[in-house]
Amino acid sequence: MGPYVPVNKFSTNGREPSDYDNQAMMIPDQIDDMGEKRILVEQDFAVVEVEPKDEESCAAERLHHLTKIVTQFQDHLRERASNHLGYPGNHNCSHYLALSTLLQFNINNAGDPFKESDHGLHSKKFEVGVLDWFAQLWGIDKDEYWGYVTNGGTEGNLHGILMGRELLPNGILYTSQESHYSMFKIARMYRMDCGTIASLATGEMDCNDLRDKLLINKDRPAIINVTIGTTFKGAVDNLDLVVQTLIDCGFSDNQFYIHCDAAISGFVVPFLKQVQKFTFKKPIGSVSISGHKFLGCPMPCGVLITRRRYIDLISRNIEYIASFDTTIAGSRNGHSPVFMWYVLNLKGWRGLEQDVQKCLRNARYLRHRLKKAGISSMLNEMSITVVFERPPDNEFVRHWQLQCLENMAHVVVMPHVTVEMLERFLSDLIRKRNTWYGKVQPPCLAEDIGICNCACPVHACKCKN
Amino acid sequence: MGPYVPVNKFSTNGREPSDYDNQAMMIPDQIDDMGEKRILVEQDFAVVEVEPKDEESCAAERLHHLTKIVTQFQDHLRERASNHLGYPGNHNCSHYLALSTLLQFNINNAGDPFKESDHGLHSKKFEVGVLDWFAQLWGIDKDEYWGYVTNGGTEGNLHGILMGRELLPNGILYTSQESHYSMFKIARMYRMDCGTIASLATGEMDCNDLRDKLLINKDRPAIINVTIGTTFKGAVDNLDLVVQTLIDCGFSDNQFYIHCDAAISGFVVPFLKQVQKFTFKKPIGSVSISGHKFLGCPMPCGVLITRRRYIDLISRNIEYIASFDTTIAGSRNGHSPVFMWYVLNLKGWRGLEQDVQKCLRNARYLRHRLKKAGISSMLNEMSITVVFERPPDNEFVRHWQLQCLENMAHVVVMPHVTVEMLERFLSDLIRKRNTWYGKVQPPCLAEDIGICNCACPVHACKCKN
Repeated sequence: MGPYVPVNKFSTNGREPSDYDNQAMMIPDQIDDMGEKRILVEQDFAVVEVEPKDEESCAAERLHHLTKIVTQFQDHLRERASNHLGYPGNHNCSHYLALSTLLQFNINNAGDPFKESDHGLHSKKFEVGVLDWFAQLWGIDKDEYWGYVTNGGTEGNLHGILMGRELLPNGILYTSQESHYSMFKIARMYRMDCGTIASLATGEMDCNDLRDKLLINKDRPAIINVTIGTTFKGAVDNLDLVVQTLIDCGFSDNQFYIHCDAAISGFVVPFLKQVQKFTFKKPIGSVSISGHKFLGCPMPCGVLITRRRYIDLISRNIEYIASFDTTIAGSRNGHSPVFMWYVLNLKGWRGLEQDVQKCLRNARYLRHRLKKAGISSMLNEMSITVVFERPPDNEFVRHWQLQCLENMAHVVVMPHVTVEMLERFLSDLIRKRNTWYGKVQPPCLAEDIGICNCACPVHACKCKN
Repeated sequence: MGPYVPVNKFSTNGREPSDYDNQAMMIPDQIDDMGEKRILVEQDFAVVEVEPKDEESCAAERLHHLTKIVTQFQDHLRERASNHLGYPGNHNCSHYLALSTLLQFNINNAGDPFKESDHGLHSKKFEVGVLDWFAQLWGIDKDEYWGYVTNGGTEGNLHGILMGRELLPNGILYTSQESHYSMFKIARMYRMDCGTIASLATGEMDCNDLRDKLLINKDRPAIINVTIGTTFKGAVDNLDLVVQTLIDCGFSDNQFYIHCDAAISGFVVPFLKQVQKFTFKKPIGSVSISGHKFLGCPMPCGVLITRRRYIDLISRNIEYIASFDTTIAGSRNGHSPVFMWYVLNLKGWRGLEQDVQKCLRNARYLRHRLKKAGISSMLNEMSITVVFERPPDNEFVRHWQLQCLENMAHVVVMPHVTVEMLERFLSDLIRKRNTWYGKVQPPCLAEDIGICNCACPVHACKCKN
């Protein structure tokens, strides 16, 4: 096969055709030594060199071939987005096409967003407009905050925890076992002691366990990560109870630092009435949120906001480093602040609220239908994440792009998830369950999501929740 | 002024008109307490909320207004790109418009690029295609390397140095004083001892100083950052001499780790004949390069390549963390690997070589013209960065977007820099110098770039270089 024979590389790649061939699988299963599937790169995805003598004659054909692969890739992405249920990304992104001509510019917001640079190709005015919006949302005055648009939730966490460590160098990082894995990676990177706190069946941090662990190390400051929306169950840690626990254990204001990781539910919680808010009116040090999740920016991005006085303090202490740059990344994406600015302006507060209400409604609908079908499931009060029994069929999991953990799978009901998509999913699930659970029984999920949410033969009759 | 009165926010903003008003300054100078210019956000860049009652009637006007601002921003970027000389970014980016429809997709390459994910909206095949190309360029077999597409040079450095520290936990980080500032930031983040090595007038690491510092700490492993293109002078550290110095000081293979930061000159050096190469055939541990600099990807990105056996070793040691994700970022931009794949295929090795030759030729031309005009200047052998005396005129510096350090300024002759642009720059510079240096003399740069490159009244006649 010559390098320019056009073939659809997102097709079945020689597998047996299956139920889900409309998903235009781009990946044939290749299992490595560790039992994991590995990416296999065919010729089309390689960078192909052309002989100098053929260069001119090949140019048009080469361009045509590249365009064809990208077009096929887009068809594949379109199909995958239409069956995307298990990851916290919003795939309603077509409005960003209005910004597509920006791709002809190499835009770099290097360094501090508030500092003008002689480098003229940046979008820092858009960035500061976005930051101001988040500062207002989180109750901190314009001249009191500092922040920047990050490459995603992990960079926000990296910055927030670094702030805590620089302010309290001997501090221990406390984070719940259900917090994002980046926390444990960060503790390792930063050479910090890390206390893992147990969680409740809801996924929320167990503040009794936090108390016990704080008391064991009363002589060392506490850097606490509070998760606003855990990765798997969408649980929101109880910020007020965390603060109360610190006070009860005798920690004064200058002995603790709280970072809020709001990557998952940061856009949901502010719209819920009668729910405790995370805000800088409370003794928190930083908040990090993602822009590619609920907001649906086309590439990973996010926002980190902290108190300006902390940045000023650290800048004085480590003058050489901070005088250049107080961000983690250095060179920073100048497109993503424009995306965020655009979508926030386009939707406005009311548009976002409508998205949140729709997602909450659809999540409750899904949970209701699962329950009615006798399937173990759970939905936290402030969450759009529906947890249920893990399907024992990898092809099904891959088709619906479900995220799985132990006995559980989940659907994150993002704005692109329609009732029609949920109906297709439910009908497929209920039909397949008849074949999965002919002879064997569905798993018991009592330990994972609580007895009341478990619909296994043992617990189904015991609870009428 | 109502929120939707269209005004060009990239205009002079009430400043006195100047020579450079065609640069459509988006920033009025606002000086803060620290004497630094700060970004001032006018109404147009804020996120504006509309009253619910006006929502429907405003929708079209709102969209029109947003589009207008983005269009003005593009005009501003176009003008800035046409006078962009001092930062190492290539602004020949119009070919990326062919990929603009990808912006309607939220693409995330979360985690390891070689591991398939149930999350279907990723571009890992393109990513691995790109990684394979770099692996081949840097002399390491497909099954010997591991790597990923990063968010830029700093993330590559973060990963490379972390590898070194995890392999040699008690290691000292050695890096030259002219290496990128991220190195000093990283040492602080990772709580590593850092030895700053002196540099020569060329900007290259002084291996005599390295030897002295290695000998003082012979009992501790060495993690060495070798810079392939320093930020300011475009100097290339002498990798072979660094390795020889380590051997001379009695460091065996398992007592050192070398990371190569090739952000600046990584694409230039491989095309130079009779120049020592950085390659995995030599005892290096990792290489990091940028994709938004010479390659001109529209947003910060890069590539990190390391030895797979190191990643496997670390994965076993920190199983919990690594089993999820061996990257720094976690969620990763799925667009940038497609950009890199596209431009590498479009240009091919020959196209890149032509770009490099053109840049070297233009850099030599600029250096020749500066010298002829009696202006202190320097151009390293393997470099496209021309260093010269710092213009004492901030408006001039801002117009041409020059990067300055102490007495020096520089131009990085990237592929978008044409002879025509250089002529405009030279003519402006030479004309302005007559007004700058009427009564005072130009600065002496002998200490900064060497006596032979200095054209100040004292040194001009002494050297005929």
